[in-house]
Amino acid sequence: METKAMTAFRKTAKTSTSGAKTLGQKYFVSPEIFGEEQEKIFSTQWMLIGHQSQIAGAGDYVVQQVIGESLIAIRDKSGEIRGFYNVCRHRGTRLKEDACGHASAIQCPYHAWTYGLDGKLIGAPHMDDVPGFDKAEYSLHTVNLALWEGFIFVNLAKEPHSLEEWFAPLAGKFSHWNMSILRSAKRIEYDVRANWKLMFENYSECYHCPGVHPMLSKVSPYDSAENDLCEGPFLGGFMSITKGADLTMSGKACGLPVGGTNAADSQRVFYYSIFPNMLLSLHPEYVMVHQLWPQSPERTLIVCDWFFHPDAAGVTDPRYRFNPGDAIEFWDMTNKQDWHVCELSQQGIASRAYQPGPYSSRERIPAAWDREYLRQMA
Amino acid sequence: METKAMTAFRKTAKTSTSGAKTLGQKYFVSPEIFGEEQEKIFSTQWMLIGHQSQIAGAGDYVVQQVIGESLIAIRDKSGEIRGFYNVCRHRGTRLKEDACGHASAIQCPYHAWTYGLDGKLIGAPHMDDVPGFDKAEYSLHTVNLALWEGFIFVNLAKEPHSLEEWFAPLAGKFSHWNMSILRSAKRIEYDVRANWKLMFENYSECYHCPGVHPMLSKVSPYDSAENDLCEGPFLGGFMSITKGADLTMSGKACGLPVGGTNAADSQRVFYYSIFPNMLLSLHPEYVMVHQLWPQSPERTLIVCDWFFHPDAAGVTDPRYRFNPGDAIEFWDMTNKQDWHVCELSQQGIASRAYQPGPYSSRERIPAAWDREYLRQMA
Amino acid sequence: METKAMTAFRKTAKTSTSGAKTLGQKYFVSPEIFGEEQEKIFSTQWMLIGHQSQIAGAGDYVVQQVIGESLIAIRDKSGEIRGFYNVCRHRGTRLKEDACGHASAIQCPYHAWTYGLDGKLIGAPHMDDVPGFDKAEYSLHTVNLALWEGFIFVNLAKEPHSLEEWFAPLAGKFSHWNMSILRSAKRIEYDVRANWKLMFENYSECYHCPGVHPMLSKVSPYDSAENDLCEGPFLGGFMSITKGADLTMSGKACGLPVGGTNAADSQRVFYYSIFPNMLLSLHPEYVMVHQLWPQSPERTLIVCDWFFHPDAAGVTDPRYRFNPGDAIEFWDMTNKQDWHVCELSQQGIASRAYQPGPYSSRERIPAAWDREYLRQMA
Repeated sequence: METKAMTAFRKTAKTSTSGAKTLGQKYFVSPEIFGEEQEKIFSTQWMLIGHQSQIAGAGDYVVQQVIGESLIAIRDKSGEIRGFYNVCRHRGTRLKEDACGHASAIQCPYHAWTYGLDGKLIGAPHMDDVPGFDKAEYSLHTVNLALWEGFIFVNLAKEPHSLEEWFAPLAGKFSHWNMSILRSAKRIEYDVRANWKLMFENYSECYHCPGVHPMLSKVSPYDSAENDLCEGPFLGGFMSITKGADLTMSGKACGLPVGGTNAADSQRVFYYSIFPNMLLSLHPEYVMVHQLWPQSPERTLIVCDWFFHPDAAGVTDPRYRFNPGDAIEFWDMTNKQDWHVCELSQQGIASRAYQPGPYSSRERIPAAWDREYLRQMA
Repeated sequence: METKAMTAFRKTAKTSTSGAKTLGQKYFVSPEIFGEEQEKIFSTQWMLIGHQSQIAGAGDYVVQQVIGESLIAIRDKSGEIRGFYNVCRHRGTRLKEDACGHASAIQCPYHAWTYGLDGKLIGAPHMDDVPGFDKAEYSLHTVNLALWEGFIFVNLAKEPHSLEEWFAPLAGKFSHWNMSILRSAKRIEYDVRANWKLMFENYSECYHCPGVHPMLSKVSPYDSAENDLCEGPFLGGFMSITKGADLTMSGKACGLPVGGTNAADSQRVFYYSIFPNMLLSLHPEYVMVHQLWPQSPERTLIVCDWFFHPDAAGVTDPRYRFNPGDAIEFWDMTNKQDWHVCELSQQGIASRAYQPGPYSSRERIPAAWDREYLRQMA
Repeated sequence: METKAMTAFRKTAKTSTSGAKTLGQKYFVSPEIFGEEQEKIFSTQWMLIGHQSQIAGAGDYVVQQVIGESLIAIRDKSGEIRGFYNVCRHRGTRLKEDACGHASAIQCPYHAWTYGLDGKLIGAPHMDDVPGFDKAEYSLHTVNLALWEGFIFVNLAKEPHSLEEWFAPLAGKFSHWNMSILRSAKRIEYDVRANWKLMFENYSECYHCPGVHPMLSKVSPYDSAENDLCEGPFLGGFMSITKGADLTMSGKACGLPVGGTNAADSQRVFYYSIFPNMLLSLHPEYVMVHQLWPQSPERTLIVCDWFFHPDAAGVTDPRYRFNPGDAIEFWDMTNKQDWHVCELSQQGIASRAYQPGPYSSRERIPAAWDREYLRQMA
């Protein structure tokens, strides 16, 4: 079965982008558009919130804010990961305050109502003498949750489209990276004063690399991009890595290869944007994943994880010496360079003088991303 | 004469609270409801702003913000306490900036217009040559002010209902506490990120005490409450104090009894909520009073005073050694525990998953408080 | 040719101000009025943004925020000063982040589009293969810019009235001050929590001086004002300086006279308000200039410069020893006293008790300023 997005892709993939211009001002500053995005995109699409390795054991949980909603993803006793609204059924109290933790049951800190890991109410003091009260009616409210390649996605829709169908166009594409077994070595959060779409547009081209990323440009030529996903909700391709170089501060590999030993891949870095909140960057020895969390028209929280092979730490082969900081420092610097120019764009776009400007021939992917965005908003 | 609230009380006092649920989400997050509360409740009801002992001498004043209005309560030369808007009649300048002080006259810091303690304009330089100008037309704007048991109340209504009638149902009830002669030993202000009603609901039950207040629960059993005011704008009753204990950090009395030497009272703590901004907690040797000042739907300023017997400091009887910090530290800790769970409730109630939840059999007073609130908003 | 304002002046100059009252509350707190002011005043009038001496050489530029718009004033190779919106024509990026600097061309930090000092697009990588793209269509957006007595003014209107005509009523009036050659010795910025009109009203009278400015009042009697511009967009006159005194901390002159050696002027300080954002204060040996930048109904950014004779630093005559800090400290203190009472007025005016109050006989200029403001808003 083909998704709507894929049908659209076949129709438009060969369209020239000549004439494509940036989005109008309202898309970057209007609270009304922001509200519309929350309704049409963030309340209906699958949103990345983490990776299964973060909650490996029964009772392990993470808490994630999704467009103002606090959600708990917790592994139950059968090993399944479940999603709940972080709200007690008694007086509405927030149940879990910390970003992650472990619990044998979910107990409200206010009046001690207690829920099992499956969300069922199992304890509610002094409620027995309330006529008509039935514990079975007061389970935690659930949220849809599903996995793709080991990543945890949630969907706030009441009857969401299937995650499996959504990702069908990518079936098999990333298998040899074994993403489901990777482990995050580091998470960094960024508070960016720019509209979330600017970061997608920024991620989708390297036209800006010579001026913005002098170090990256040295190890990965800005004009080496070859895109294989050019229309629809998944966009991107690879860029080449200069022989003998690496996307690290030292220029050397910093861990065990995660994508197998394919010689070609060892000289490539793959960049894919996964609509609407994931950036997936596959390097020979690590996978960098950004989550984008729009906070307002002019502000976005970005959560960035660096994933490595689970066996990376134990490797003795000097070619693959485990040194995650070498990649993290490289990308933390590069990320900040990107966020800075996104913030400058946000500032200028808010001007009465701003008009949509022309995309160059090296900005076909941003133009395609804009088209997908407008389709979702239609 | 019986107030409307008391008539309502007789009608509903025996109604079971089974089936009562918490208020809907809008009451905790909506700016429109907040505006309606300001109009229907805080602009028409008597609001506690302090105690007469704070301004004992002629010219002593306090300044209090009441729903955005800065008010001056000042004792005039005849000993009467008067209320004025803190606004010069010339160019509108704020007259008094400090929270309290002493003045022989009220002089504007801008152009030196000067008012007597009775609010009359007595000096206005260079106004004599303005044709038609008459000082008598430019007295300070007054605000209604009255006393109850030594506490100062203001009312922003143009023609407010009588304070005396309002408090008639409580006539004599607190006489033997001699509240009008007490003195505050300490004031602490709390900035709480929760709707003001959550603090009233929290104050009105001890169902939460075992989990939230381990120390309080030890000295005052959570299920010992006996309520004597169960419907209307005044709600509450007493809880017992474990024999040999006290609501202090040390567990010992920390001052001279304020409520006389009634043996029963010496083992009881009385908790009354006085609609819409006063919490009155009477302990054997001190009276704790909270003022609640809603700042926004999701934020409340709370001002807490601890009042002691005016002779407490001079007592030599070792049973009543004056140690106010012992009580203040106990309640400051307990207050913060309460504000924290109120903040958690605020967070959860803002969720799309929140629905009104069922009150337990130990939450009859919060349910009654909600009913009174809804009557006031009707 | 006579401006509308001057015609109005002739008609009303002899009108008594008796009966004049302060503006209504809405003019100080309403976001709608603030929006109207931006449209009717700040988007159509000439706004002071600086002095030509700040950008003396080709490629020197300053960046100024004007009602939310970031503007670049840059001196081109021919010596002319030009005004541009600080917005790249490609993707809208802010071009210049710093408040001032020097550039041989204006290059966008994002994708390196490059503009000449005349605003013409001279470089745009990878745009040649975009069909129909023409550099000539992508010059920087210009903003109207003109000079008066060496001061730089901008006007956001598409077809603004002429700066020359606007200032015609002042032609020759300030010539002997040689303001176009002066140099700023110091700039101080103030963030004031008050409506911008309160600062104009404050500047326009010395009725407040005895109470607010004890030191100023000593060296310049508060009742010595003689106004020569009493109606219209330019208002003010002079006050006398006590013989042997000076408006400095030491009471001594702090630099070379800027206004020539006219004996009368050496004992006078001239104060003029230039609608809508300039306060011009001419002292014997320095010129103080305030720029007012409304940020919201209740907040204004004030930029204050102290200008001295360009040769002041080299003077050896002990009567004119160059000591700019002596004047700056004096006025920084006095400025802060003013902003403080303006903030107090803002607070009081926001009260429900505020009503317009009567201006005194010493507040004819504030009353005239209010009239001009209302004419502009009509």
